[in-house]
Amino acid sequence: MKNTFTFVLMLLVFSAKAQTLQSPSKEITLRFSISDSGTPLYQLDYKNKPVVSKSMLGIYLKGNTDLAANFKIDNVKTTTFNETWQPVLGEQSNIVNHYNELTVALSQNGTNRKLNIIFRLFDEGMAFRYEFPKQPHLNYFIISDEKSEFNVTGNHKTFWIPGDFDSQEYAYNETKISDINTDKIDLNNGIGLKSIAGKFVVQSPLMMKTDAGLYLNLFEAAVVNYPVMHLDVNPQTFAFTSRLVPNAIGDKAYLQAPCVSPWRTVMVSDDARKIVSSKMILNLNEPSKIDDTSWIKPMKYVGIWWEMHVGKSTWDYAGSQNAQNTESQELIASGKHGATTANTKRYIDFAAKHGFDGVLVEGWNVGWEDWFGNWKEEVFDFTTPYPDFNLAEINAYAQSKGVKMIMHHETSGSVANYERHLDRALELMKRYGYPAAKSGYVGRIIPRGEFHDGQTMVNHFNFVARRFADYKMMVNSHESSRPTGYHRTYPNYIAAEAARGNEFNAWSVGNPPMHETILPFTRLLGGPMDYTPGIFEIKMSAYDKTKKEQVHTTLAKQLALYVTMYSPLQMAADLPENYEKYPDAFQFIKEVAADWQESRYLEAEPGDYITVARKAKGSENWFLGAITDENARSTEIKLDFLTPGKKYKAVVYQDGSDADWQENPKSYAIKTIQVTAKSKIKLHLAKGGGTAISFTPVN
Amino acid sequence: MKNTFTFVLMLLVFSAKAQTLQSPSKEITLRFSISDSGTPLYQLDYKNKPVVSKSMLGIYLKGNTDLAANFKIDNVKTTTFNETWQPVLGEQSNIVNHYNELTVALSQNGTNRKLNIIFRLFDEGMAFRYEFPKQPHLNYFIISDEKSEFNVTGNHKTFWIPGDFDSQEYAYNETKISDINTDKIDLNNGIGLKSIAGKFVVQSPLMMKTDAGLYLNLFEAAVVNYPVMHLDVNPQTFAFTSRLVPNAIGDKAYLQAPCVSPWRTVMVSDDARKIVSSKMILNLNEPSKIDDTSWIKPMKYVGIWWEMHVGKSTWDYAGSQNAQNTESQELIASGKHGATTANTKRYIDFAAKHGFDGVLVEGWNVGWEDWFGNWKEEVFDFTTPYPDFNLAEINAYAQSKGVKMIMHHETSGSVANYERHLDRALELMKRYGYPAAKSGYVGRIIPRGEFHDGQTMVNHFNFVARRFADYKMMVNSHESSRPTGYHRTYPNYIAAEAARGNEFNAWSVGNPPMHETILPFTRLLGGPMDYTPGIFEIKMSAYDKTKKEQVHTTLAKQLALYVTMYSPLQMAADLPENYEKYPDAFQFIKEVAADWQESRYLEAEPGDYITVARKAKGSENWFLGAITDENARSTEIKLDFLTPGKKYKAVVYQDGSDADWQENPKSYAIKTIQVTAKSKIKLHLAKGGGTAISFTPVN
Repeated sequence: MKNTFTFVLMLLVFSAKAQTLQSPSKEITLRFSISDSGTPLYQLDYKNKPVVSKSMLGIYLKGNTDLAANFKIDNVKTTTFNETWQPVLGEQSNIVNHYNELTVALSQNGTNRKLNIIFRLFDEGMAFRYEFPKQPHLNYFIISDEKSEFNVTGNHKTFWIPGDFDSQEYAYNETKISDINTDKIDLNNGIGLKSIAGKFVVQSPLMMKTDAGLYLNLFEAAVVNYPVMHLDVNPQTFAFTSRLVPNAIGDKAYLQAPCVSPWRTVMVSDDARKIVSSKMILNLNEPSKIDDTSWIKPMKYVGIWWEMHVGKSTWDYAGSQNAQNTESQELIASGKHGATTANTKRYIDFAAKHGFDGVLVEGWNVGWEDWFGNWKEEVFDFTTPYPDFNLAEINAYAQSKGVKMIMHHETSGSVANYERHLDRALELMKRYGYPAAKSGYVGRIIPRGEFHDGQTMVNHFNFVARRFADYKMMVNSHESSRPTGYHRTYPNYIAAEAARGNEFNAWSVGNPPMHETILPFTRLLGGPMDYTPGIFEIKMSAYDKTKKEQVHTTLAKQLALYVTMYSPLQMAADLPENYEKYPDAFQFIKEVAADWQESRYLEAEPGDYITVARKAKGSENWFLGAITDENARSTEIKLDFLTPGKKYKAVVYQDGSDADWQENPKSYAIKTIQVTAKSKIKLHLAKGGGTAISFTPVN
Repeated sequence: MKNTFTFVLMLLVFSAKAQTLQSPSKEITLRFSISDSGTPLYQLDYKNKPVVSKSMLGIYLKGNTDLAANFKIDNVKTTTFNETWQPVLGEQSNIVNHYNELTVALSQNGTNRKLNIIFRLFDEGMAFRYEFPKQPHLNYFIISDEKSEFNVTGNHKTFWIPGDFDSQEYAYNETKISDINTDKIDLNNGIGLKSIAGKFVVQSPLMMKTDAGLYLNLFEAAVVNYPVMHLDVNPQTFAFTSRLVPNAIGDKAYLQAPCVSPWRTVMVSDDARKIVSSKMILNLNEPSKIDDTSWIKPMKYVGIWWEMHVGKSTWDYAGSQNAQNTESQELIASGKHGATTANTKRYIDFAAKHGFDGVLVEGWNVGWEDWFGNWKEEVFDFTTPYPDFNLAEINAYAQSKGVKMIMHHETSGSVANYERHLDRALELMKRYGYPAAKSGYVGRIIPRGEFHDGQTMVNHFNFVARRFADYKMMVNSHESSRPTGYHRTYPNYIAAEAARGNEFNAWSVGNPPMHETILPFTRLLGGPMDYTPGIFEIKMSAYDKTKKEQVHTTLAKQLALYVTMYSPLQMAADLPENYEKYPDAFQFIKEVAADWQESRYLEAEPGDYITVARKAKGSENWFLGAITDENARSTEIKLDFLTPGKKYKAVVYQDGSDADWQENPKSYAIKTIQVTAKSKIKLHLAKGGGTAISFTPVN
């Protein structure tokens, strides 16, 4: 990893109670000040217009003390930083990390406590964090509340989900700030465990659009040893305030100085593409702590998973009706178990035939007869396979076919139990050559009283990433807290779910067509998502005529998602037999890359559409994905991202002229054309549709 | 392990609302009935006089439902059980488990829930437990409260310690029930973490004596997957009620039917020796689940430990004043570190020379500079030695000398961290051949909000025992919940502290002389205690002239404790240099056994004195220990426990004629006499004194 950077340090003589900092482009201006009562304040302008009006900053400590008032400025320091670094896996090979930084050193009258607030201004936004320096009067402390305000300047349009301490698996609500109210949403949405914090609490990343056409995003970066930040909303004043997730006894964070809070971020641009392509969150995280990253590789995989969601098979061996007290009985096979040796070999054969790197198998280990919904501590041991799953045979077979097996660790939320078994689980993976695992956290957390998004769980997810790194293994967490860039530091934390994934379409109201146009502006800013696209058999009636559920998509859109939803870990989620029905469309999934040299967001509007082109790493091939919401869309794309002078064969996978996500989702058309960097290409996306294109140089 | 038992099943036709059961001796009678409102009731007579008057039984479930009323009796069943079994290690080679059992099958009107209450009557007392059978209307459930009453029949004398969810390290209070009040005790007692549940809450085991001279003991057995039971006291009515230790959110226990509660026990006798020698608690636990127990062995050990308590050296390497943020600095040796390679070799040499099995070393691993009192999660990693402690060198040296090293795992209460590291810690022990570890739990528990005595922690301590068993290693827990016989099931759980140990004498008000006469009636009923006796340098002024602290003992009493305080793991706790000053007295510690063929409690009165004789397992040698409280005591002991016809050399280690625990504690005298089973021997115990005798056959 080669870094080039410049570093300029400017020590300013302390002068006033107010400080100003600008982004490198000078489009964003931060003003910091101290109120008469000594409370830190900031405000933010974009192109000389306010986007965050005067907002307070402060921390409250357990025991009725605070770090929120009576401050004076001891010192200020500004620096400039400009570095280009190379992620192990990513949307682009080189990432520019360019910002101006202002550190305001505060001390509190009376207590002599010291608090630094560090601001960074990037061209696409602002970040700040609290720093608690080493000091005589603050060593161990417990945060009872953080009150970081984000007072936006109007009743913007928002894409919000409820502030829930246990789940982010919601579809987005597109409303004005004044209409945010979690009481108004339909909770019959398939989410198994909800812990909504209140009527006027939403999650970050929170994407907004102003009436003037500005795009605003509130989020955080580098959440390490700290709880997740949700946002209290004042629907009248348009003020957002940090709302930290508590632990079992109501505390928010246990810290020891010196330490830092996560970064709180405000992105702003009049071009939505600047938000969606921003690497600010990654840049705010620490560089990789893994020296040898040669074993961290992108993976496309298939797996025994969707067949359980569609009801073809089950995770459990004995049938879920055999739930109570199965440990005292011999399990009797129901005949519907998905994770059999024979079925796994079928997937291995399929993966080998079509060039997939890996095969995931869920339901391979004992415990699924009685695993869910009862806050049970000891469910899985992560090492004991069902009698019809022959670990040794399967892994030998996979190796003979050049396919990697992906382990599955469903914790059922019993994290204490998982941590007790983790080393044994990793040893088992090592013995059989598993390079990666998918973890799951479906259910209420144990230690009981903890939430998925509290400090304890944030630490758990990060610990698991580090422990996997000790074993040179990758991990992909589902139902975890949403990522905030820790995969820069531990790039083996290859992906996460942590949002509403594709499987909700199989058995709930599902994900509306706009869902995938919002995720890149929200969840994906923090890190890759294992969204599990690629569903070709879109209507569940194919499995059971009585079912009304369907994926809210056309088939072509499912292909486009491999480009629009960045992840170095991509599943081809549908069943082998469904892919075999559509080999021409499947060809795109087989060809599409999962790690990129370069990415160009060509068009983007949250809630409406995204078009992105990406160049595969170590290749001259480009791939384009374009998706739309519930509205059909026509657009013309300039192909000027292609290398000038080169000719490309472009295979266009598009919606059929009669395609419609509801009426005719499987209608698609494939055409092959020759293009150059000077070409333009017209795209016609059906309602809920998309287009995927592969570009291969022909000269 | 050879078991002989008889089993008689009697199915009674259901007849009435009341049932009666008697102990095999017929001295104890239980009467069970159902009140008009359907509440289960019991009462207990001893020799036809009531010792527990009518008392209610019941369980309350979270969600405002109960298993405490509206019951009817569906069925009753009585059985008789008589078995003799052999513990791996113990006070005797053969244990008789003889009881009559009554199972009352109840069903609840309205809910159709089923609850069984199982009573067992032994000759020394009664036990009952709740059994939740498999049933349609009760699967998972959360216990919000257990209300098991123990309404004793008078204002008895009690030996009580406060009902504290985090500590049992109190000295006992000897008062009438009516004078129980935790507000009245001096809390300046050296206990670092106290969580006293209320004014009128005490711990079990609770030892009592009635005005009529009956001995009563309330306790529990087989606490598995359940919190510890403390006792609410009504000082007016003399009613005790179970008070379960809550978790972080106030719940008591998470259970799934079928399952059982721990046993609640009431021991009663007019002979105190029947209580102190009872194996009822052990009998109520499950037999060993370890098949091959050949690696479970008694150990006498020395260690780097007391020298820290007396201030000669420190656990930490860099000096505790270097506390804050040491992780960011290189540690600078203070020069007072105890756990050095050289010092450890000195202890190994001493152990080898004097025939000790093991050497414990505390403070060997990094983290002690900043480990205590701040609820810090990541303190120790259990694998990284300080730079002056060479693991490989020390363990090679110990092996060359035939000495085993005992590992030390101080968790600082951060159980989550310990569980994450446990397998690594055990692997390290395996690599270096450690057969055993001492664990410590000093500090507030993490997961935060949990208590030492809650279900989570009970499960942790039991888990650790099982995990050590997986590695064929023994564990000795300090600051754990007090044992209730689980070492029958996992005999590698070789000992625990879980009461006020000898070290409190080094730096606090200490343990009054009566302390060790009470522990066998309370704490030791549940399992062996690592009390760490053997202190010869009794006054701390020997180390620092300004110190007033001392062990509340004579030197001879320290010897007697090796017999009176049963443990298969016994420390010779004092410093090698102190033992070398008194080689004649030290001889007893060298010779005394730690595992026994037979034990005879010759005299016992809680709070006053204990005299016990024990025959070493696999030997004809006997050892006698006699201790007294703050009062001098003379007694005559018949030696009829010795094998008739054999002559024995008896070496009597007794208080000097001028001995006195305060004025002249180190005065002792040793005499050798010849005795037979027909001999009597007069013992004269000084104030706070004791006598130890070894008997060796000479023909």
